[in-house]
Amino acid sequence: MPTAMVLSQGDEVVTGQITDTNAAWLSAQLTERGFTVLRHVTVGDRLDDLVVVFRALSGVCDLCVCTGGLGPTDDDLTAPAVAAAFDRPQELDPVALAQVKERFARFGRPMAAVNERQAWLPRGVTRLDNDWGTAPGFAFQEGQAFFACLPGVPREMRKMFPLRVMPLVSARIPLQPGRLVTLRCIGVGESDLQQALGDFSAPGVVVSFRTKLPENHLKLRIGPEVSAAAVQAAVADVYGRVGRWVFTVQGAEVAGVDNSGGSHPAVVGSALEAAGHTLAIAESCTGGRAAAAVTAVPGASAWFLEGLVTYANAAKVRLLGVEENMLAQHGAVSEPVARQMAAGVRERAGSTWGIGITGLAGPGGATPDKPVGTVHVAIDGPGGATHRALRLPGDRGRVQELSVAAALELLRRRLLSPPTLA
Amino acid sequence: MPTAMVLSQGDEVVTGQITDTNAAWLSAQLTERGFTVLRHVTVGDRLDDLVVVFRALSGVCDLCVCTGGLGPTDDDLTAPAVAAAFDRPQELDPVALAQVKERFARFGRPMAAVNERQAWLPRGVTRLDNDWGTAPGFAFQEGQAFFACLPGVPREMRKMFPLRVMPLVSARIPLQPGRLVTLRCIGVGESDLQQALGDFSAPGVVVSFRTKLPENHLKLRIGPEVSAAAVQAAVADVYGRVGRWVFTVQGAEVAGVDNSGGSHPAVVGSALEAAGHTLAIAESCTGGRAAAAVTAVPGASAWFLEGLVTYANAAKVRLLGVEENMLAQHGAVSEPVARQMAAGVRERAGSTWGIGITGLAGPGGATPDKPVGTVHVAIDGPGGATHRALRLPGDRGRVQELSVAAALELLRRRLLSPPTLA
Repeated sequence: MPTAMVLSQGDEVVTGQITDTNAAWLSAQLTERGFTVLRHVTVGDRLDDLVVVFRALSGVCDLCVCTGGLGPTDDDLTAPAVAAAFDRPQELDPVALAQVKERFARFGRPMAAVNERQAWLPRGVTRLDNDWGTAPGFAFQEGQAFFACLPGVPREMRKMFPLRVMPLVSARIPLQPGRLVTLRCIGVGESDLQQALGDFSAPGVVVSFRTKLPENHLKLRIGPEVSAAAVQAAVADVYGRVGRWVFTVQGAEVAGVDNSGGSHPAVVGSALEAAGHTLAIAESCTGGRAAAAVTAVPGASAWFLEGLVTYANAAKVRLLGVEENMLAQHGAVSEPVARQMAAGVRERAGSTWGIGITGLAGPGGATPDKPVGTVHVAIDGPGGATHRALRLPGDRGRVQELSVAAALELLRRRLLSPPTLA
Repeated sequence: MPTAMVLSQGDEVVTGQITDTNAAWLSAQLTERGFTVLRHVTVGDRLDDLVVVFRALSGVCDLCVCTGGLGPTDDDLTAPAVAAAFDRPQELDPVALAQVKERFARFGRPMAAVNERQAWLPRGVTRLDNDWGTAPGFAFQEGQAFFACLPGVPREMRKMFPLRVMPLVSARIPLQPGRLVTLRCIGVGESDLQQALGDFSAPGVVVSFRTKLPENHLKLRIGPEVSAAAVQAAVADVYGRVGRWVFTVQGAEVAGVDNSGGSHPAVVGSALEAAGHTLAIAESCTGGRAAAAVTAVPGASAWFLEGLVTYANAAKVRLLGVEENMLAQHGAVSEPVARQMAAGVRERAGSTWGIGITGLAGPGGATPDKPVGTVHVAIDGPGGATHRALRLPGDRGRVQELSVAAALELLRRRLLSPPTLA
């Protein structure tokens, strides 16, 4: 497989002021396109160090994607470093200059004199037009490596990589990208997923895991040599082992499962919308995060009616009709209260489904029989109510996040199954 | 200044499956302690590449902090790479073995045979005890560089660095850490902050910015040679220029400003609690994110009563008493509706303060006079109501996030000021 490296430039990265998300994004893109990514290297704004690194990388990989250091100020050193490393003195590129000027003109701003620097490119490079910002990129071959230098602004870089860089790369480096199938799971940890996967193996299929709380993603990287039938068989085998936690599959079709590859709330929302159903939520310990999760889905207004964050007990009584003697007898964190919250919000909002969540997210409030992480979720809807008692690990934010996921997953399973009283 | 590098190991990083947050965290720690961080390097799970990189780094920095590759499996290569790079063959460390066994025993699990590998350390290193996981770390001097190898699990690494590594480092490398003062700002972009900062300069003070949406942090790194009086003067000068956006200062005292260094919702919550006030929220376009933001603060139940996510118009009428003719005449996204939402939730919840938020987060629903990003926030409380009309940039999530920040900031300013009708 061809090899690649990612080089990031910037004091803001090496001093820890920002996390380098560009390197992760580019690495995923390169891996999916069939590259073996050997290293990431991040260098501060030091010309001599950059020169050393550029020279070293030209001998050890087929493609080097560089981000950052193309701006107009003194600490933007990519072009000077390339010039010094490879004896390519900077020359004014009149097209690049016109583009920078044009961009300023479009926004009605005068171009500062320093911005002319962005148009001085190392000799003999290919200019990479930037339609999304002021700094043009450039690309060149040096030794073994094809170098592509892009702006560090993620929004610009993420446009330029596929549209400006990959066409040049494809013309130079033979790529066999293969396929990527992702099974998105909820309500399971990585170790349980791994155990359920057991002895799965298939020629040309590499399995990896990615935790993106509250979800876990199981990724199958499938070599270009694997036939469509073998892909299908491998996916079916994996799904047979871990399917109980999978809410959507991306990159392959599995019967009876959503294959949008969307987020967990989006998949639940699609199922509601497809059924013509509506939802209302009553939540306590999750404090609005359940409503926020579903309303993060564009178009949620088609199926989400309202959410009540009944933090105080008085609010549970007044807004949801939870009975005071239930609160007194069982406490706010209890199965009967979760059920009454779900039923109450459903009835008052006139929605098809109601969700009730009550629990102890911590750090305070624990009692011997109700430790932090005790959460009750209930679903009320056609066919009756469902309840689940949870003991969740982690800090306040983690307990809230996992509670929301558990409630939405309980609803998703109700939507998939024929109605039964549980 | 002494120099440092950060080395991360792992195929999951170089393939982009995870973003390397360890490197950013360590770099910030090292910078605050007085190191100049020269580079980050990330290497995949390849022994030969690791050996090359270890040898190269031993000659170019004073401290190299390595993360990852200490686990029990075949792709955990840090100890073998150190062994090969520096002729330090692995030897069984009996104390490390006992610790690994003890940890498994504590969790009632048998230790797998592979875990013994974690106790085979390169010859002559100093073991770094790991009280937070199974993999011990180790440290050693080689050439110019002192190497500290830590687990890649952030939770473990973030404990071990200050408690296990820094005592060894401090004994070897003279450090002059200086001071860090952070001014956390809300409702302002980096370029406006920069412009307001203008020509500020003070000897020994380095200014940097960090965007952590919806907040912007202005950081002053102050050299150890700067006197306490000069620090105070510099902070006062900066505060005089940007204070209108600052909600908390960390690392220095500024009269009349919170100095907890806490999050924006936490600072608002502290002000409410100190005044013995309570809050209720009615929100539409933010979909629960305002309630979620305030209930993310531990102990929010002391001052937060309830939140109503009135997504549907019917919910605004039924739950908040918004008048149907207001909705018909001005639309749901309007100043009068925001004001009625704030007043309605305040009255019904019986809280000191009510927040109302209504707007268009997009992507759908825009009209010529109400584009996506149009948001109205209102505060109702002692002394009357305050309203602000916003035109916010960005996608759905960004508009929601900035709306929440704007509403809480409007409340914070009301809490600071004597009551006036606005």
